[in-house]
Amino acid sequence: MTADGAVGTGTIQDPVVDLLGVLAYAELAAFDHMAEDARMAPTLTARAALSGMAATEFTHHRTLVERIAQLGVDPETAMAPFVAVLETYHSLTEPTTWLEAVVKAYVGDGMAADFYREIAALVDEPTCELIRSVLVEAGRAEFAVREVREALTARPADAGRLALYARRLVGEAISQAQHVLADRESLMTLLLTGGVDLGRTAAGGADLSGLAGLFARITDQHTARMAALGLGN
Amino acid sequence: MTADGAVGTGTIQDPVVDLLGVLAYAELAAFDHMAEDARMAPTLTARAALSGMAATEFTHHRTLVERIAQLGVDPETAMAPFVAVLETYHSLTEPTTWLEAVVKAYVGDGMAADFYREIAALVDEPTCELIRSVLVEAGRAEFAVREVREALTARPADAGRLALYARRLVGEAISQAQHVLADRESLMTLLLTGGVDLGRTAAGGADLSGLAGLFARITDQHTARMAALGLGN
Repeated sequence: MTADGAVGTGTIQDPVVDLLGVLAYAELAAFDHMAEDARMAPTLTARAALSGMAATEFTHHRTLVERIAQLGVDPETAMAPFVAVLETYHSLTEPTTWLEAVVKAYVGDGMAADFYREIAALVDEPTCELIRSVLVEAGRAEFAVREVREALTARPADAGRLALYARRLVGEAISQAQHVLADRESLMTLLLTGGVDLGRTAAGGADLSGLAGLFARITDQHTARMAALGLGN
Repeated sequence: MTADGAVGTGTIQDPVVDLLGVLAYAELAAFDHMAEDARMAPTLTARAALSGMAATEFTHHRTLVERIAQLGVDPETAMAPFVAVLETYHSLTEPTTWLEAVVKAYVGDGMAADFYREIAALVDEPTCELIRSVLVEAGRAEFAVREVREALTARPADAGRLALYARRLVGEAISQAQHVLADRESLMTLLLTGGVDLGRTAAGGADLSGLAGLFARITDQHTARMAALGLGN
């Protein structure tokens, strides 16, 4: 077993390994579900756009797996604790229309990325940089905004249903994030202590008041995405 | 319409556009079906291996679409004639086990690649080079051989069923290739005249005797793949 502490950060229930593990599986699952969702696209060009996002998620998965292996941890072991919770999220938010698929790729993945970015700020600098690099979503906002706004111009009545779906995405994302934190003490501790175990200053951390700020930032970004789509209140 | 002959090679039923179009959709379809098949993998590592092949197919799709657009042709228009025939191939060869998925990725896609490579030899040099570059399948043989040989060592009785599936792949590939050639005069003419319309010498072409050689080469390569898998006669 390479997983048993070959290096300092190489033990299971290490917050860095947990963070890389959940994100590595999240990217593989995103690849998988986006590839499937792409079939609902109205044109080959639109299908290729979502398929391309899926392919990008896969390259991110590979980057994260390589880092996990560098830490002396078996990537399967690092990802395994998060498979069920992420698949539950996907099965509870399975899009039934092309527009829902687009909203999921932008609003759902966007919120998840915000959350991962916040946690990444609490771990060591190289890991933080690596995680931020795989969370860049070049062009995704423009694509989603164009697809949704065009569709809603043609059929404004669809907006209500789509907004409801977006709300479901948020609810399920929060619910599954709670499951992860309840299950992985390492990540919960990291979030509550602001990464103090890793020698970072409290200033970089998220104590209870910091935690409130974290959720406020994530909420703000979500509201901005919904407004961009024309689905704001 | 950009599809109406903006440049010399930019008309529909142009063999170069047809070849790029069929291949562009073939890569998108391969991405899509491999991504789906990856779910049958026994481990996350194996799943990621097939998902990674799918992601690579997508980047090839993108390369081909860019070239089609450079020729002044709308990629959707170029791909459209080949959607039904390629989806028929996939629906008739849908793998039901992980090993079948692996055999399809290696034997089925390998045979298709051989065929595209042969046709590519009949068109202009830059197109030929582009096509050959997207048909490189680095590491795929090693992966398939390892997966299949390991599985057959554990359960030798599975070999018969797997060989039967491989035969079905070949049958359906040939059948769909015939449909394409019957439907696309440009490609049939290219194959029969050996690219003479494009100013290539007959030496590079596939007249009727050349055509026999083409099929012999494809058959040989198929036989070699089956032998590598331990599924040869």
